[in-house]
Amino acid sequence: MKHVYNFSAGPAMMPKAVLAQAQQELLNWQQQGTSVMEVSHRSNAFMALATQTEQDLRQLYAIPDNYKVLFLQGGAHGQFAAIPMNLIGKKGKALYLISGHWSNRSAQEARNFCEVDQLNILTQDEAGVFSVNQTDFSDIAEQYDYVHYCPNETISGVEIPDIPIVGKAVLVADMSSNILSRNIDISKFGLIYAGAQKNLGPAGITIVIIRQDLIGNAQRATPSIWNYATQVNADSMINTPPTFAWYLCSLVFKHLRAAGGLASVEQRNQQKAALLYQYLDNSHFYHNYVAPQNRSLMNVTFTTNNDELNAKFVAEAAENGLHALKGHKVVGGMRASIYNAMPLDGVEALIEFMQKFAQENR
Amino acid sequence: MKHVYNFSAGPAMMPKAVLAQAQQELLNWQQQGTSVMEVSHRSNAFMALATQTEQDLRQLYAIPDNYKVLFLQGGAHGQFAAIPMNLIGKKGKALYLISGHWSNRSAQEARNFCEVDQLNILTQDEAGVFSVNQTDFSDIAEQYDYVHYCPNETISGVEIPDIPIVGKAVLVADMSSNILSRNIDISKFGLIYAGAQKNLGPAGITIVIIRQDLIGNAQRATPSIWNYATQVNADSMINTPPTFAWYLCSLVFKHLRAAGGLASVEQRNQQKAALLYQYLDNSHFYHNYVAPQNRSLMNVTFTTNNDELNAKFVAEAAENGLHALKGHKVVGGMRASIYNAMPLDGVEALIEFMQKFAQENR
Repeated sequence: MKHVYNFSAGPAMMPKAVLAQAQQELLNWQQQGTSVMEVSHRSNAFMALATQTEQDLRQLYAIPDNYKVLFLQGGAHGQFAAIPMNLIGKKGKALYLISGHWSNRSAQEARNFCEVDQLNILTQDEAGVFSVNQTDFSDIAEQYDYVHYCPNETISGVEIPDIPIVGKAVLVADMSSNILSRNIDISKFGLIYAGAQKNLGPAGITIVIIRQDLIGNAQRATPSIWNYATQVNADSMINTPPTFAWYLCSLVFKHLRAAGGLASVEQRNQQKAALLYQYLDNSHFYHNYVAPQNRSLMNVTFTTNNDELNAKFVAEAAENGLHALKGHKVVGGMRASIYNAMPLDGVEALIEFMQKFAQENR
Repeated sequence: MKHVYNFSAGPAMMPKAVLAQAQQELLNWQQQGTSVMEVSHRSNAFMALATQTEQDLRQLYAIPDNYKVLFLQGGAHGQFAAIPMNLIGKKGKALYLISGHWSNRSAQEARNFCEVDQLNILTQDEAGVFSVNQTDFSDIAEQYDYVHYCPNETISGVEIPDIPIVGKAVLVADMSSNILSRNIDISKFGLIYAGAQKNLGPAGITIVIIRQDLIGNAQRATPSIWNYATQVNADSMINTPPTFAWYLCSLVFKHLRAAGGLASVEQRNQQKAALLYQYLDNSHFYHNYVAPQNRSLMNVTFTTNNDELNAKFVAEAAENGLHALKGHKVVGGMRASIYNAMPLDGVEALIEFMQKFAQENR
């Protein structure tokens, strides 16, 4: 079988070593004679795994002691609802910074649970190039119970590298597509959340990192499984958690620690992205429409500016073992998602194919 | 390694053949060179799996055409909230039949979203034996938007084999611990839901079977991922679903179909439970406190009436490869969960150990 590189935006590529270990012990975890997915979440062995998983994440991000970590169900989309349910207080409204599809979706969902003000921070210049035009919101932020943004828009490949300035307001970030991709200062945030299926593990588990003082103010009509206070008290187990997904996250975190932690992760991600953007910038055949300062480390979008040629590219790439390069239907074109698990040689193989395709089709 | 039988109440034993297939293709699903958990839920291959999974479930239960099937996140506990959000209408209240711990928990959660009347249907006689004392609610049911019950209480091992009579009212059943354990007439129900981690697959996916005419009346403050209308329109994919759990459910359904469907499943379950209850009834050492007509096919509870001896039993059983027999802390004693995946020889091994332990400790 030809070697395959999977550029899927999520569910996405997992580290090969993690999958290999999961495969090896799938029917016999910790010499128990059962699969990890068959044991009770309340068993000593699984509780130990859960504790270790949290510790590994805390170590990776240097999460301060006054932050709690939750492992929940429902995806980031579930949190779109859970966040206003838990965080809306006296001010009664939230500010959503809109930089693309997902920040917009989260704002739409929040409107069912609270008053929402939206602020568009994405601009497009005459050449069609997108950039984020504002990162300081300190003049208005404190009118709101929280300020929500999406630091990496998976669909368009727009990233906001600088943490928005919100004064004393609570900053909430949907990090689904760039969590653990580089080091960040957790103390700048009130709440960080992420669906697992890009950089953490398989689809079906959601991580919430929340500052302790924000816990305990949920509206009455908050489902218990998303009530942060209830879940903190229950170690994220008020009901049966997605144990196998949790286990895979634990393997991913161990893998990242063993690979040198987030400093090394970021270095590799910078290297991969730089290689691809550099190639795009030097190409007259492919185009990327994101300003350099807002180019995503994780999701690299490009197009030939010709829909037929784009379709041909995606199909021929797949035949050559370069999978899932089709861009999201909202923006079209191509997208190479190069999350943590994508090795440098995957990016090199992509560029090699791009060169060949450009020569054959120019 | 000694052969292990895992009596965990959930997450629970999976069919060995299913785990073996999952292991074999974990890194290379359908010869794609990637894991099933790494491919997009919107890929043709995964969409085909999703469609087939639904068809297999429809075939197993002979689900009528006017019912929709959803694959959701959040567990049964999530549905405790989602059900009132979606089903409460003009009558403004729901009736919850209480037969144990979980029916009570679902009623408590529903109170955050609607008016709830509770009706206790569990009685205990002078000898301490539990039974369900009422199954006809047709005189009061139509005052309510729906009547909720739990046909199998996992913790106490109390099952309600006859479907409650509710006239024209909407009957809602939490079948988390007895779904696919025997054939049922789906048309008697308005909505059936179940967390997967007992009879369907791993923890992290929830199945909802709902009559079409009940869809589309969700309250505004319903999270999109639990809005049945939204999810029906999106084929259960308004956000990234737990694809690996879905895949495992697909393998379980195929396995059950290949094993003769629900008629065969029920026959094996009846045989396993009869063997264990017969042994308990003939024993002076072990006791079960559920009336014969309400004994669970899935969760067999028993005790020596001596806490120390119970603890010794659980520990020695584990040493002998009979895992997770400790009863839930709410009721104490022992519990053998003998879901579909537990083979007859597991029950035989348990009885053999019980005999030996009784001889040594009487």
